[in-house]
Amino acid sequence: MFRKTLAEIALLVGGRVVGDTSIVITGISGIKEAKGGDLTFLANPKYLPLAADTGASAILVGNDVLIEGKPVIQTDNPSFAFSKVLGLIKEYTTPKLMGIHPSAVVHPEAVLGEGVGLGPHVVVEKDARIGRNTVICAGTYIGTKTVLGDNCLIYPNVTVREEVIIGNNVIIHSGTVVGSDGFGYAQVGDIHVKIPQMGTVVIEDDVEIGACVTIDRARFDKTLIGQGTKIDNLVQIAHNVQIGKNCILIAFAGIAGSATIGDNAIIAGQVGVAGHVSVGSRAVVAAQSGITKDVPAGTMMFGTPAEEYKAATRVLAHMKRLPRYAQELKELREKIQLLEEKLGKSS
Amino acid sequence: MFRKTLAEIALLVGGRVVGDTSIVITGISGIKEAKGGDLTFLANPKYLPLAADTGASAILVGNDVLIEGKPVIQTDNPSFAFSKVLGLIKEYTTPKLMGIHPSAVVHPEAVLGEGVGLGPHVVVEKDARIGRNTVICAGTYIGTKTVLGDNCLIYPNVTVREEVIIGNNVIIHSGTVVGSDGFGYAQVGDIHVKIPQMGTVVIEDDVEIGACVTIDRARFDKTLIGQGTKIDNLVQIAHNVQIGKNCILIAFAGIAGSATIGDNAIIAGQVGVAGHVSVGSRAVVAAQSGITKDVPAGTMMFGTPAEEYKAATRVLAHMKRLPRYAQELKELREKIQLLEEKLGKSS
Amino acid sequence: MFRKTLAEIALLVGGRVVGDTSIVITGISGIKEAKGGDLTFLANPKYLPLAADTGASAILVGNDVLIEGKPVIQTDNPSFAFSKVLGLIKEYTTPKLMGIHPSAVVHPEAVLGEGVGLGPHVVVEKDARIGRNTVICAGTYIGTKTVLGDNCLIYPNVTVREEVIIGNNVIIHSGTVVGSDGFGYAQVGDIHVKIPQMGTVVIEDDVEIGACVTIDRARFDKTLIGQGTKIDNLVQIAHNVQIGKNCILIAFAGIAGSATIGDNAIIAGQVGVAGHVSVGSRAVVAAQSGITKDVPAGTMMFGTPAEEYKAATRVLAHMKRLPRYAQELKELREKIQLLEEKLGKSS
Repeated sequence: MFRKTLAEIALLVGGRVVGDTSIVITGISGIKEAKGGDLTFLANPKYLPLAADTGASAILVGNDVLIEGKPVIQTDNPSFAFSKVLGLIKEYTTPKLMGIHPSAVVHPEAVLGEGVGLGPHVVVEKDARIGRNTVICAGTYIGTKTVLGDNCLIYPNVTVREEVIIGNNVIIHSGTVVGSDGFGYAQVGDIHVKIPQMGTVVIEDDVEIGACVTIDRARFDKTLIGQGTKIDNLVQIAHNVQIGKNCILIAFAGIAGSATIGDNAIIAGQVGVAGHVSVGSRAVVAAQSGITKDVPAGTMMFGTPAEEYKAATRVLAHMKRLPRYAQELKELREKIQLLEEKLGKSS
Repeated sequence: MFRKTLAEIALLVGGRVVGDTSIVITGISGIKEAKGGDLTFLANPKYLPLAADTGASAILVGNDVLIEGKPVIQTDNPSFAFSKVLGLIKEYTTPKLMGIHPSAVVHPEAVLGEGVGLGPHVVVEKDARIGRNTVICAGTYIGTKTVLGDNCLIYPNVTVREEVIIGNNVIIHSGTVVGSDGFGYAQVGDIHVKIPQMGTVVIEDDVEIGACVTIDRARFDKTLIGQGTKIDNLVQIAHNVQIGKNCILIAFAGIAGSATIGDNAIIAGQVGVAGHVSVGSRAVVAAQSGITKDVPAGTMMFGTPAEEYKAATRVLAHMKRLPRYAQELKELREKIQLLEEKLGKSS
Repeated sequence: MFRKTLAEIALLVGGRVVGDTSIVITGISGIKEAKGGDLTFLANPKYLPLAADTGASAILVGNDVLIEGKPVIQTDNPSFAFSKVLGLIKEYTTPKLMGIHPSAVVHPEAVLGEGVGLGPHVVVEKDARIGRNTVICAGTYIGTKTVLGDNCLIYPNVTVREEVIIGNNVIIHSGTVVGSDGFGYAQVGDIHVKIPQMGTVVIEDDVEIGACVTIDRARFDKTLIGQGTKIDNLVQIAHNVQIGKNCILIAFAGIAGSATIGDNAIIAGQVGVAGHVSVGSRAVVAAQSGITKDVPAGTMMFGTPAEEYKAATRVLAHMKRLPRYAQELKELREKIQLLEEKLGKSS
């Protein structure tokens, strides 16, 4: 069971206790649900009124925050500090998959690093290489010549096709498919003739990929997911897409063939990015937008087809007033008619 | 083989035969495809002209409907009555999965209720509990400490992660993932640091979940799917979302983190609901809309960002007339110029 | 290893070498990435400037194209010719799955054609029939009475439910679900009562289906995917949908129940087609559009709700000018007020 004093936790997160340092924490929780023994956190000042009433034994807060009647640990980034404590507790509570389950099918010419765990019914094909301490859960398929780095965690029922290259510390959630054929055909009359997809997918270190994501292999060369990028559930990455480092892609984002996403970009939910388009680094694309042309670095975009965010929202504001504008147009027309009649008479 | 008289079927559905009660029904079909021996149904009066010409031997109709030259069974709700007959036939024709397939991997500390069926290559982890008469089909994964109720039907290649709680009579279709990690990171400089997702998913009784749906586990506490809610294919439910009872969510609907959907709400296809937003009970969100703010109970919404349906469609109607408005604006400008010139001369 | 002269390749693709016919090709690549020994291709004249600088040993080009200092093979359709060469190389490099893996579970009453390959943990249920030389990869499930034609390739972790009919030369990518229940309920008060889905799915010859696609079985009768149609990843096809021949459906396209798509139609990414709607043959629906009414053959559509493309883009162009129109409206109002005042005085 997890059991740490506030002093120990402050040490772990690099924070400072204000209050009784000997209080014992045995769990964590949200500010509303917390009870005695729990540690909670306050990242958003808007929840300050809830902090006084929380059942938690202590609160992780920002450097300048005090809660009357509650012990706190002050840190630079309470959200990050909290995630460190969460990680510690998760280690205590999650049993690690160890060893190779007898029902796993591992090709004799596959290479497994030290400490690899393979769940039931896992398949590892010929010449695949699995790095040290990587865990592959039940029913997952690893194709021929595919390489996984160290300390990866691949959840159940994932499919990684042949010749894919995956770095270290990569997490892939269930139902996801990496290395499916790109969607490419040559048109001959009305017939679509399949263009074999000879390339691969490269996933760099520290990437996390959600559930039921599809990442297609390149026509040739590679589809690339840059280091530290995090992909939500049900995202589509087409062939030859190049995604930079530390990007965020939210559910139902679809990136069409050969598009490029720069480092630290954010692609929100249900966004479509057209083929061969380039989205600059630190660009932000708002939900449900459709990107049809290159986006400069650092720009926020919105709409279908997307425009720069402020211009797009200005147009939206005017759109809502359209019924009023139409009415005004009618009134002006009548006034002009009156003026014309009057002027006709007066002249 | 299925074989029932109209009299027997009328008894089953609580209806009244008008015509020969001894006619024998051996199958069911749509009104256009039906042939002799089939029962069909007429729910929408718009298809009345097809009814006279159907090859079916009899028709399930509303209480006040007669079809010349065709035996009918009149009921309050012909669509529901038809589904009852369908269910009966399905029972006759679908063999039930019985027993535990020898290739299934069941942890010795998992608990299986009476009458549980496990298909080939199913995995049931430690301390999982499966209720009576629940059927789990080939290749499906049930994680540690996960609980399934009675009479559930889990189709092939489903993934239910650890510590998930599922009620009775729940149906989950293939490729679906329940309990994947919520998409949560703490930002430290440019790096996204994973926040462990310590909560779970609770799915109440009588829920049906389509194929390739993703339902993330909560950061802490639970993601909730209320009793009787029906979820179509390829829907995304993020962490800590709370969905009420008897809701309908259509394909590609995406519900972002901590959003709340009230009872009996309908979320149509390709709709996005932003994080922390609340959609009231009996609200209806039209297809492809984007919900960015709270929706009052019983309200119909449309657009991106969504507005109340009538206001949104009024704006749309004006939008279509924009080319005409622009032309009128130009004409008024010219008329005013003429007036100005005239008035300048005349004054 | 692949090794062919330009003369041999020209013969294969029905083209004409301009330059040294004895040059040996050992691989293929994109025009930018190519190196010595590679063949590349030039389909789009916009990349002509790259052609002179490519590291490739030869280039596949159109009939009238010459590249100074580079051997070329001229053909009618360089993109198609290139795909032929790709196919040849793929055959050299891809080992074919042969035989039945001992961990596959095949019902004794299933029928396997000559040359069928079944990967580890494949399940083939009772009365299923698999055609000659069809390959079914690891973890894939084939349901009771389902029929697959000859020369199909079903990738790992696919689910094909019971009684589905699949033609010859069909490719299905990982994570895809064919034959899940249609989303149909009869409303009884607030309760949604499941309507059993008794129909099936029919997939004709030469269809390719991407990863994590969902195709629901019909209520009765069949959901149909016509010959030669190609479906991208994460597409949803609802029950009773009828899709014609040689159609293209891009990622996140959602086709609602009983909709009809004509031959050679193109449905772009994130498009929604409403239930019971008919899209004509050779129609093109632009990305993110929402089709709410029938689309005539050959028409291009855009927007939500979608309109004919030119009308829709004309409205869009006016929308962008809304801030200017609003300003003009304001100016006209002021001018009219001045005129009214002037005329009031002058009269």
